Amino acid sequence: MKLGRLNHVGVATPDVAEAARVYAELYGAADATAPKDFPQLGVRVVFVTLPNMQIELIEPLGEASPIHKFLEKNPKGGQHHMCFEVPDILAARDAMRARGATVLGSGEPYIGAHGVPVIFVHPKDSGGVLIELMQDPALYDGAGGHA
Amino acid sequence: MKLGRLNHVGVATPDVAEAARVYAELYGAADATAPKDFPQLGVRVVFVTLPNMQIELIEPLGEASPIHKFLEKNPKGGQHHMCFEVPDILAARDAMRARGATVLGSGEPYIGAHGVPVIFVHPKDSGGVLIELMQDPALYDGAGGHA
Repeated sequence: MKLGRLNHVGVATPDVAEAARVYAELYGAADATAPKDFPQLGVRVVFVTLPNMQIELIEPLGEASPIHKFLEKNPKGGQHHMCFEVPDILAARDAMRARGATVLGSGEPYIGAHGVPVIFVHPKDSGGVLIELMQDPALYDGAGGHA
Repeated sequence: MKLGRLNHVGVATPDVAEAARVYAELYGAADATAPKDFPQLGVRVVFVTLPNMQIELIEPLGEASPIHKFLEKNPKGGQHHMCFEVPDILAARDAMRARGATVLGSGEPYIGAHGVPVIFVHPKDSGGVLIELMQDPALYDGAGGHA
């Protein structure tokens, strides 16, 4: 298991539309999607595309959203996670466990906002940084595993 | 002014050597520099190189280090800033001010750990995210401005 490219930095915010406006108007980063709701993930998301990666703006959606706790601690928002591509998400999950790290939830990869399977590694394993691992979309067979 | 590529994500940590060990052993991200001290910046730094960007691991150096406050709030460490390349750092600084943002310190670009001029934009202007803007190294004339 070896990290591939950084796919995105996840940035939590109380308002994705306002955050997208800031990236567009202050920083000229105007290549952004419309806000999209993912009720099953508890988030509303805007992707801002930059030359070599994306910023994933994340707003809590619903009372059970995993983003509420972060915004309680950081009311204005902030950097929430880094997401790296891996060639085989199941092999990556197994490697995380074999190397002593804690995979969040059941440990079964699930489809994230990018439409490919992901897992999250507990921040305690990586110096306080929440790390998302994402099946490399170019190597995804569409059935939950790698091509 | 328009953001270019993400150069790095800055990750604060109480111990860059230990953090580098985690990225190498847990994540297979072993392409890393030796720790280097920048007394004038108040930081000890390790760069971990990934396919499309770097992680800048940052440990406080000296009592006046700007990283102490972050680690008081986040003792294990965490994501500290995102750094984007811009074609002309002085034009970027002027654009930030013209657009109503607060450039930290005197506002004069100074040489950062990558050897090119940088500025930082106050987190209040970007939804709690500290943004570093870096003179694109490929367009740097070595004298404080762009080529």
